[in-house]
Amino acid sequence: MLRFYNGKVLTMNDEMTIHKDYEVWVEGSQIVYVGVATDGAGSQTAVSNACAGGNEKLPVFEREIDLKGNLLMPGFKNAHTHSPMTFLRSYADDLPLQEWLHQQVFPMEAKLTPEMIYAFTRLAILEYLTSGITASFDMYVEPEANAGANVDMGFRTVLCGTINDFKDSIPELERFYQTYNHYHPLVRYQLGFHAEYTTSEVLLRDVAALAHQYQAPVYAHVSETAQEVEQCRQRYGRSPIEFLSDIGMWQYGGGGFHCVHVSDADMDIIKEKGLYVVTNPASNAKLASGIAPITAMQKKGIPLAIGTDGPASNNCLDMFREMFLVTALAKLREEDAAACPAEAVLAMATCGGAKAMGLNDCDCIAEGKQADLIVIDLQQPNMQPEHNLIKNLVYSGSKQNVKMTMIAGKILYEDGQFFVGEEPEKIYETVAKMVDAIR
Amino acid sequence: MLRFYNGKVLTMNDEMTIHKDYEVWVEGSQIVYVGVATDGAGSQTAVSNACAGGNEKLPVFEREIDLKGNLLMPGFKNAHTHSPMTFLRSYADDLPLQEWLHQQVFPMEAKLTPEMIYAFTRLAILEYLTSGITASFDMYVEPEANAGANVDMGFRTVLCGTINDFKDSIPELERFYQTYNHYHPLVRYQLGFHAEYTTSEVLLRDVAALAHQYQAPVYAHVSETAQEVEQCRQRYGRSPIEFLSDIGMWQYGGGGFHCVHVSDADMDIIKEKGLYVVTNPASNAKLASGIAPITAMQKKGIPLAIGTDGPASNNCLDMFREMFLVTALAKLREEDAAACPAEAVLAMATCGGAKAMGLNDCDCIAEGKQADLIVIDLQQPNMQPEHNLIKNLVYSGSKQNVKMTMIAGKILYEDGQFFVGEEPEKIYETVAKMVDAIR
Repeated sequence: MLRFYNGKVLTMNDEMTIHKDYEVWVEGSQIVYVGVATDGAGSQTAVSNACAGGNEKLPVFEREIDLKGNLLMPGFKNAHTHSPMTFLRSYADDLPLQEWLHQQVFPMEAKLTPEMIYAFTRLAILEYLTSGITASFDMYVEPEANAGANVDMGFRTVLCGTINDFKDSIPELERFYQTYNHYHPLVRYQLGFHAEYTTSEVLLRDVAALAHQYQAPVYAHVSETAQEVEQCRQRYGRSPIEFLSDIGMWQYGGGGFHCVHVSDADMDIIKEKGLYVVTNPASNAKLASGIAPITAMQKKGIPLAIGTDGPASNNCLDMFREMFLVTALAKLREEDAAACPAEAVLAMATCGGAKAMGLNDCDCIAEGKQADLIVIDLQQPNMQPEHNLIKNLVYSGSKQNVKMTMIAGKILYEDGQFFVGEEPEKIYETVAKMVDAIR
Repeated sequence: MLRFYNGKVLTMNDEMTIHKDYEVWVEGSQIVYVGVATDGAGSQTAVSNACAGGNEKLPVFEREIDLKGNLLMPGFKNAHTHSPMTFLRSYADDLPLQEWLHQQVFPMEAKLTPEMIYAFTRLAILEYLTSGITASFDMYVEPEANAGANVDMGFRTVLCGTINDFKDSIPELERFYQTYNHYHPLVRYQLGFHAEYTTSEVLLRDVAALAHQYQAPVYAHVSETAQEVEQCRQRYGRSPIEFLSDIGMWQYGGGGFHCVHVSDADMDIIKEKGLYVVTNPASNAKLASGIAPITAMQKKGIPLAIGTDGPASNNCLDMFREMFLVTALAKLREEDAAACPAEAVLAMATCGGAKAMGLNDCDCIAEGKQADLIVIDLQQPNMQPEHNLIKNLVYSGSKQNVKMTMIAGKILYEDGQFFVGEEPEKIYETVAKMVDAIR
């Protein structure tokens, strides 16, 4: 058993209260105790008292972590990414969208092998850990290589279907769905397709039928650019959200990535179908796609989550930057400094993401939940003074503040060191060699 | 003498070339050698050969820093800030601008003492160091306390005049200008006033006369909000830039902070007067002020720099976040993913800032320049692979990558440790006590 004590605990389970007198115990992959240690300092006496029913038998702790006043909280969930695209980071930036995609990204992606996808995913996982991200919702081809990288490093992922006219078939999608939902406790799979504009109506109807068969939610890129929406209207006389809803895609819910160009009618459908919107502000800004109407979505009661998108379009995998952008861009869009307050953003980045991905056991700090936890170093200048820790996290927080990242009860990153079964330098070297070979 | 070897060097003095075979020597506060070590690896033989004219007498190095392939570059210049406002970080966010300013910021500022300004400035300096910032252009009251904090910690600052109808007089401004330009090698002073909307025409004309007398540039907040421009038009029938130019404010140049709401005619004046524009994207977004027309300014050939603004409105003092925002917001504003490329942004954040502040000896890595240098850790996942280091810095760089910050030849921050004559925890504690006392 592992014990965190002498810190502040943000459970994300009770209105953003910061508990200065809580401790948290972890056994195996689970949180087994969250609550007050009576003298607040975490002495063995206090632990004994804190034990359910004042059990006389003290638990045996393998490690007791003195938080020294720092903050323990649930890890961030990266609710939309393409992890293996680390290999294209800074390869082709500052280009118009179509040129970037067709002349730079697609030709390089065509050269990928499963070995490369394995290595490039591992690089992304290292970066997630430095940013306190404890799970990814990862849409990319070759799920076996991707799942393998996650399991080998101890990272949690929800793989997302990528089917479209150029890749994968319905039987493959079904096989992936079955395989990666019974593969390893750290891996799950959700039905998904790339986007309306890359997938024929016939194929989309087949995906909807599969979702119906499994009573499963479906996820996809939706309404990322104005052009995409316009072309869908030309094709089907409806917006992507209207069209996909009409063909029965979301009978069991799901979600849309991006959702930048959505109408009021679209938002009503999103709300009615119980869909999650995963916003990707850095990517949408860098590719000049626009600013998503987060405030309007909040007013509709649409559940929200945050994703980095892939490192080819972002280019970093940093939830702190994304959190600031969610609120900063909402404020600009609404011309209102009060828009999208920090508390709402932090909820999107943690429990909102978990729910969007179907990780209902990873959303908060509570007994029985998975121990996907991070420690935030408050003894850094950007976290001082401590007027309001939630605002500090969202407005001035940084990767530099991530002192520890734990997934399923295992510490994978602590004080700048990785514990992922491989030296990071080896991963960098492997990636560099592979990248050199295909450039 | 101090030697950097076995790394990559970005001098910012030759078209963003990354020199893999350079080393850099520092003596006292200055760079004394920049150039090739013949075998590239930095052996003593190579150093001897690299010595001007193959001087037989080897220099004596107090310390030789093996960069291990990491990047040595000029430090970032924070070209607009209010350092002491760290005490208001996360104190009053997510509020409408006027309520934030009048009900939260001003009443708290009224309670400040010089001792508090000294302590709060020290907290800001710690944060600058973590972000590789080596100089601040700092506009705040009580220059003695501010200058003292900088000198005591070894940080470089250019203080900026703050005169307005509520604070300071022309004789005081003149005395500050004389005093803090002959105070300490790390401190300089530029004439400045708060803003047109807080300063009477009589006082503004007196500032212009002082600038004429000293043949000095003048800096101020200019055209930050639409309301400010509209009110100036009502008062004077002209935009702030037109009005200030007409009364002779910028006969010897200077610059404007923010410049979000500027017309084409304004930009022509800015260009004609040789003014610098210091953009503050995080603050302008967080306070919903708008997006500055950076691309239009670039097309006019207006020199640009970047500032964080104060920590009450940003809330962090992080040049990496600012750099990403400069380009991301320009891309959104122009609806063009090719707008404001990374190279231009990096120039603004380094040499552009130095020139805007009048730090012409701190702009790049060259012999005779001040040794205001940073080392960027490339052995981190967000910097891999190394397709393009400039893009990596601007699009995926983070405080986490700042391995060392040196000012005037002294290392003030290295591997997470501060060397500023005081333990950071003591500074946090002092700030916390002072903040508690005035809340």
